[in-house]
Amino acid sequence: MEDVVIQWQEKVSLKDPILVEGLPGVGNVGKLAADYLKDAVKGLPLATIYSKYLPPQVYVNEDGTIRLVSHELYYARGARARERDLLILVGDYQGLSPEGQYELTDRVLKAARELGVRELYTLAGFAQGHMVDAPRVLGAASSPARVEAMKALGVVFSRTDPGGGLLGASGLFLGLGRLYGMESVCLMGETSGYFVDPRGAEAVLKVLSRVLQRELDLSALEGKAREIDRIAAKFREMEGKSPTELPQAREDLGYIG
Amino acid sequence: MEDVVIQWQEKVSLKDPILVEGLPGVGNVGKLAADYLKDAVKGLPLATIYSKYLPPQVYVNEDGTIRLVSHELYYARGARARERDLLILVGDYQGLSPEGQYELTDRVLKAARELGVRELYTLAGFAQGHMVDAPRVLGAASSPARVEAMKALGVVFSRTDPGGGLLGASGLFLGLGRLYGMESVCLMGETSGYFVDPRGAEAVLKVLSRVLQRELDLSALEGKAREIDRIAAKFREMEGKSPTELPQAREDLGYIG
Amino acid sequence: MEDVVIQWQEKVSLKDPILVEGLPGVGNVGKLAADYLKDAVKGLPLATIYSKYLPPQVYVNEDGTIRLVSHELYYARGARARERDLLILVGDYQGLSPEGQYELTDRVLKAARELGVRELYTLAGFAQGHMVDAPRVLGAASSPARVEAMKALGVVFSRTDPGGGLLGASGLFLGLGRLYGMESVCLMGETSGYFVDPRGAEAVLKVLSRVLQRELDLSALEGKAREIDRIAAKFREMEGKSPTELPQAREDLGYIG
Amino acid sequence: MEDVVIQWQEKVSLKDPILVEGLPGVGNVGKLAADYLKDAVKGLPLATIYSKYLPPQVYVNEDGTIRLVSHELYYARGARARERDLLILVGDYQGLSPEGQYELTDRVLKAARELGVRELYTLAGFAQGHMVDAPRVLGAASSPARVEAMKALGVVFSRTDPGGGLLGASGLFLGLGRLYGMESVCLMGETSGYFVDPRGAEAVLKVLSRVLQRELDLSALEGKAREIDRIAAKFREMEGKSPTELPQAREDLGYIG
Repeated sequence: MEDVVIQWQEKVSLKDPILVEGLPGVGNVGKLAADYLKDAVKGLPLATIYSKYLPPQVYVNEDGTIRLVSHELYYARGARARERDLLILVGDYQGLSPEGQYELTDRVLKAARELGVRELYTLAGFAQGHMVDAPRVLGAASSPARVEAMKALGVVFSRTDPGGGLLGASGLFLGLGRLYGMESVCLMGETSGYFVDPRGAEAVLKVLSRVLQRELDLSALEGKAREIDRIAAKFREMEGKSPTELPQAREDLGYIG
Repeated sequence: MEDVVIQWQEKVSLKDPILVEGLPGVGNVGKLAADYLKDAVKGLPLATIYSKYLPPQVYVNEDGTIRLVSHELYYARGARARERDLLILVGDYQGLSPEGQYELTDRVLKAARELGVRELYTLAGFAQGHMVDAPRVLGAASSPARVEAMKALGVVFSRTDPGGGLLGASGLFLGLGRLYGMESVCLMGETSGYFVDPRGAEAVLKVLSRVLQRELDLSALEGKAREIDRIAAKFREMEGKSPTELPQAREDLGYIG
Repeated sequence: MEDVVIQWQEKVSLKDPILVEGLPGVGNVGKLAADYLKDAVKGLPLATIYSKYLPPQVYVNEDGTIRLVSHELYYARGARARERDLLILVGDYQGLSPEGQYELTDRVLKAARELGVRELYTLAGFAQGHMVDAPRVLGAASSPARVEAMKALGVVFSRTDPGGGLLGASGLFLGLGRLYGMESVCLMGETSGYFVDPRGAEAVLKVLSRVLQRELDLSALEGKAREIDRIAAKFREMEGKSPTELPQAREDLGYIG
Repeated sequence: MEDVVIQWQEKVSLKDPILVEGLPGVGNVGKLAADYLKDAVKGLPLATIYSKYLPPQVYVNEDGTIRLVSHELYYARGARARERDLLILVGDYQGLSPEGQYELTDRVLKAARELGVRELYTLAGFAQGHMVDAPRVLGAASSPARVEAMKALGVVFSRTDPGGGLLGASGLFLGLGRLYGMESVCLMGETSGYFVDPRGAEAVLKVLSRVLQRELDLSALEGKAREIDRIAAKFREMEGKSPTELPQAREDLGYIG
């Protein structure tokens, strides 16, 4: 079979589209943000991506039907004058092997280039290893000009973080994207890294909203974030407790890692 | 060498055949059921499938001759009016790697499509983690229509099970099968998951018998199931005993996992 | 690069040659035997096989020059009337991955077929897990006729051993060889499995000598075997000692596994 | 995507160039030496090599821009009469898998051959497992003539070291290089193996300087080496302390392995 199979649901012509990527990762910040964005802008399904580099797994929907593990590409047209068309990549998993990561990213970039993408944003989490009250958004970009543009929007560029660089899709889209002449930015929402973090996703989307010059209704995410805040408070209480109690607690919080 | 090698033993023309798959997995329910089905319908060998995605291993038969690890495709013609032709896939192992799982499944589906398959059933076990007296059959399907048809035969579609989806060949045949326009159902017999379980296989075959509108003589399987029932009773007795005694006991039961 | 690279040292035309394979494995019995056979029959280098499925490693010879990890194919012409030409495959490692095992074996079989091979013997060890005084030779073969022929030479065909089949090259040459229409036998010398075992190799070569109808001077191997016998005696003495002393002892014996 | 992607920054014609390789490894000796050499001879960027056999990772530069993990090929022309042109290969990582090691090395060798390379030197560390005061340079070479030439420059060829051969790129360039008819030498600087070792790199570069008949200003490396000497002294002091204190200490020293 083909290493990466793209099934197109529609054939579209887009106007200078921006690609936004968010796959599972640290605190699931990137996936939460991209999934939310897709709904907020009423994204329409454009393509489904299957691959042997993803797990051999199907999910069972509530009605008993199945869905093969995949990446999904959505699009949304700019409604107002200054809004550009959007492509949003979401998915169930990142590629399982290093080779798989490269092949999947490269294949999507080729498709994006054919759709006219010259600019892309990847969304991710940055694990601090401790609770974060007001998460900042850290950045990395393809060019000094992008770095400056992001600084103007409050994105933090630290000389020391992330020290080991970016691992996985959110970094690879920037690195391989440059081989296709694409400008790119990675936006990383600070998070504890201990559980799924809508607060980090909210921080990332606030920046992205200004980048895209699109207003995004973040109230539903805010609701989820408050719920997690409550759990986080509970978590802090427990930090004085014995370590044997914590694993159980973390599972309750839906740890993903 | 070719990634997947199919050796055809015969060239056949089949009438709207149904593919049934059962490979090793949880409680070996799927393999037990498909092997039994193949014998019950007097399946004839159609093709042997070798692959570098299977272990580099040969089995030694009782007479000292060897047999390379493989998948085997059998066929059986419908004898009575309402019986459709059958294709049955059995085998020694599932693909070792995720890529191998995809490649093997896709290759078999391509061959099945050429043989006219538009409908398939995969047989599997569903591990409950505790002894199951009267195993139910859980389902997952390619379409709401199939879900309803299976419900009418007593198959259980649960909103919560299997929560993590289906892993391996029994799920992948459904997921990739859809790319070939095939309707499909996965039938999962409940099992403890602790040992090979003919009782779960029996439950699955009872449903399949009604699906295929073929009477199947399940008496031999019933005999094996009773034997396991006796062992299971012994197992329950031991559950009050110290954990150090249990592993030994499980080995006696022929744990496969 | 090509997955498997064969460098031919010579172009030869052989008369109905028999292929003998012996690579590292249990007790290194197969490798010891094939290496010894190659020297005993004054084998001439025919081809060197490099592959990305072998470790990325070079050995340093005593004179400071290097040698890339490889398999080597030797040949020896039959000197007397009844002696057939021989091809002997030796090497540093087996393929690292299951795919690599298949690719390497298949590539060598293709080359062997072009050289006229219709019959092959693989040499291996059979781990008993305890000291073996007079190692028997167990067998597995491609056909009942071969099984009978081997029984006549004293080879043991057991209904229970090896229960899990043959793993690795010594089994795969038989399994894949059959796809090329080759008759084949695996000869397994019993060994403890704890250290390199010339006694097991000697047992295998005694059988092979009769198969090939070639007299082999086994005196040098007998010398090595006696040395190991002395070490084994020491090992037995230690068996009454505390387990913490044993690992050190096993290392002294040159454990390979 | 291509398994290995080479982006050329310039098209050059070189005069009988010598290839020098130094990638991360034991004590990072090879990487330190090759990176230093590249700067000392004012190497100019010739090509960047990306590959799916490297980690899916980007580094973040101090200015916030990113750089995809890669290998880099530099060149430097011989300035004086006896100096030959140089190609220097440096990089962030070795290939992650055995196959990746082979594919990356083979691809670079093909490119090197097209640039006229007939001779190459790989730089590496040799782990002694204890502190080394005056590191020697051990060698391995493609031919007895090279061995003799290196001995004349003080390189040590030991009958016992390295006993297990050379693993990874520094060995593979020699082994595969021979398939392209290239003469080659591996220079291994002795090192403890516990931390990054400029002293070992210095020893290697002193030999290489004589090989290349180029004077190299090693003062900056000498500075780094003195700093490590101070840390090493601290390390020795600690050797009398309890083992539980050592891991922490090793981390301070920037252990790479």
